[in-house]
Amino acid sequence: MHTIFQYQEYVSEYLESECKMKEPRNLYEPIHYILGLGGKRIRPVLTLMTAEIFETDYKKALPAALAVEVFHNFSLVHDDIMDDAPLRRGQTTVHEKWDLNTGILSGDAMLILAYQYFESYQPKIFRKLAKLFSKTALQVCEGQQWDVDFEVRDDVTIPEYLKMIEYKTAVLVAAAMKMGAIIAQSSKDNAKLIYDFGLNLGLAFQLQDDYLDAFGDPETFGKQVGGDIIENKKTYLYLKAMEFSTPEQAAELKKWFTEPAADIEAKVAAVKEIFNVSGGSQATQDAIQEFTFKAFDTLDKMNLDTAKKEVLRTFGENLMGRIA
Amino acid sequence: MHTIFQYQEYVSEYLESECKMKEPRNLYEPIHYILGLGGKRIRPVLTLMTAEIFETDYKKALPAALAVEVFHNFSLVHDDIMDDAPLRRGQTTVHEKWDLNTGILSGDAMLILAYQYFESYQPKIFRKLAKLFSKTALQVCEGQQWDVDFEVRDDVTIPEYLKMIEYKTAVLVAAAMKMGAIIAQSSKDNAKLIYDFGLNLGLAFQLQDDYLDAFGDPETFGKQVGGDIIENKKTYLYLKAMEFSTPEQAAELKKWFTEPAADIEAKVAAVKEIFNVSGGSQATQDAIQEFTFKAFDTLDKMNLDTAKKEVLRTFGENLMGRIA
Repeated sequence: MHTIFQYQEYVSEYLESECKMKEPRNLYEPIHYILGLGGKRIRPVLTLMTAEIFETDYKKALPAALAVEVFHNFSLVHDDIMDDAPLRRGQTTVHEKWDLNTGILSGDAMLILAYQYFESYQPKIFRKLAKLFSKTALQVCEGQQWDVDFEVRDDVTIPEYLKMIEYKTAVLVAAAMKMGAIIAQSSKDNAKLIYDFGLNLGLAFQLQDDYLDAFGDPETFGKQVGGDIIENKKTYLYLKAMEFSTPEQAAELKKWFTEPAADIEAKVAAVKEIFNVSGGSQATQDAIQEFTFKAFDTLDKMNLDTAKKEVLRTFGENLMGRIA
Repeated sequence: MHTIFQYQEYVSEYLESECKMKEPRNLYEPIHYILGLGGKRIRPVLTLMTAEIFETDYKKALPAALAVEVFHNFSLVHDDIMDDAPLRRGQTTVHEKWDLNTGILSGDAMLILAYQYFESYQPKIFRKLAKLFSKTALQVCEGQQWDVDFEVRDDVTIPEYLKMIEYKTAVLVAAAMKMGAIIAQSSKDNAKLIYDFGLNLGLAFQLQDDYLDAFGDPETFGKQVGGDIIENKKTYLYLKAMEFSTPEQAAELKKWFTEPAADIEAKVAAVKEIFNVSGGSQATQDAIQEFTFKAFDTLDKMNLDTAKKEVLRTFGENLMGRIA
């Protein structure tokens, strides 16, 4: 096994060696640009790590890891268009730096490139990877559509919200890990359990992202703290706060989320206060812990030596540790 | 073997049986809409026909045929956004009927769905089909990018233009046919030759489309005759006319294509006149014939009984016959 930092390094090196500049430049330059913006590469790291957990050299998992990373970046490019986002990882988004058409077409090409990385595997493994990938990619699109739909809906339920973040975020984490298991030709049971581990960890991770967006440390969070509140995003925090609020609190919260605020800082502070006093914050922290424990529970069921399970648990703890 | 009409019918029936409405509706409704607008279904018909040419029941080729048709429609949805087109097959385009985000996201889902249709094949065939499909799909994106790039360029050469229409249009026709050969497990040579047949026929078809856009019969052409001229599209007709023009004709043609025209009908008539007198029209008709003959030449090299070759030749003649 290697450290997270090593896996990140392997991903970056492989990405650089594989992504050659091709013609037409206006198609491939934006692809290089977005992939070069970095990020933590959590998903491809998980593919490499899982392959090694199941006794296979991480090198064999590099093409699949890259497929996952390229797909993830495809979804960022198209999502940024849909959200009209000016910045991604602190840099100009593709459709802003170039234009709308470039964003659409480069994104399309990235989705196809992701499939091409699987071509280095023999037919049976190729088919399994591509099938899992297609199913996952379609769920990510469906999750994005639910997210868009929820913006104009007033009656989103907690199960609906969880389904949305499961599709939009968690299934790709789960699939990234299962791909490592497929390449390592693990048992079916272990492949399924590692998928469930990734799914629950992915859910915990996304809920924590919701939480930190409001309550994170501005020094370490990376995004603008309060961003979701400013954009009136109905996250888990909001939905739970609405559920637990007194009628007065609920009315106030709704008002903040529908009427334009003159003082943004006052709005963020007031909404956070309602999140706290209503019990919405506590409920979110409980849910994060619940999904993290659920992930760890699947480890117990796995047919795998204890040291390997410990690696996965430590990864989970590190990932979720950023709450502290 | 069956008739073209029968194959069209089989494609439509299979499409209807396969495309079930799923949630979220806002993602899948636009997909049903665009696939329901019809069209001639030339590409999937070619997949079915090729499978039968190589002695395999067309039914085995239906999933691959549908993949090709869904991909083609994906490219229409995203291209219509890029061209800001209000109409497709006489009906409102997806991004106009819904919105930009729906057009992007439904298109993405269609690209993934196309890959999923290959999952009904066993691993070796699946890998071959998906590999050919990815290569082709990426070429289509590259062709679209060249097309966008050419709009603002003044120095596009004939070889560059031919490469653009090869990628944007012809490779998908070629791949549609080769998929039929792959499913029928034809010899490698025959699979390559049928690809070349499709490629040259696709080139001839696209050049004819350029020609008919200016000189077609408004009653039968389907699109607005003169559309390319009105939009200042530098097609094969234009490039050849420029090549063969006297300096005076070239200056006049360039003027029509750069300055806004007060009288659109006068512009179309004047440009057509230059296309004719310069020899651009004749050169285009010559090129159409050249690529059609090149397609027919590949038939001669094929290891296939004469009756089957005749079927392919007749298809080609019918397709190109619309020039008369």
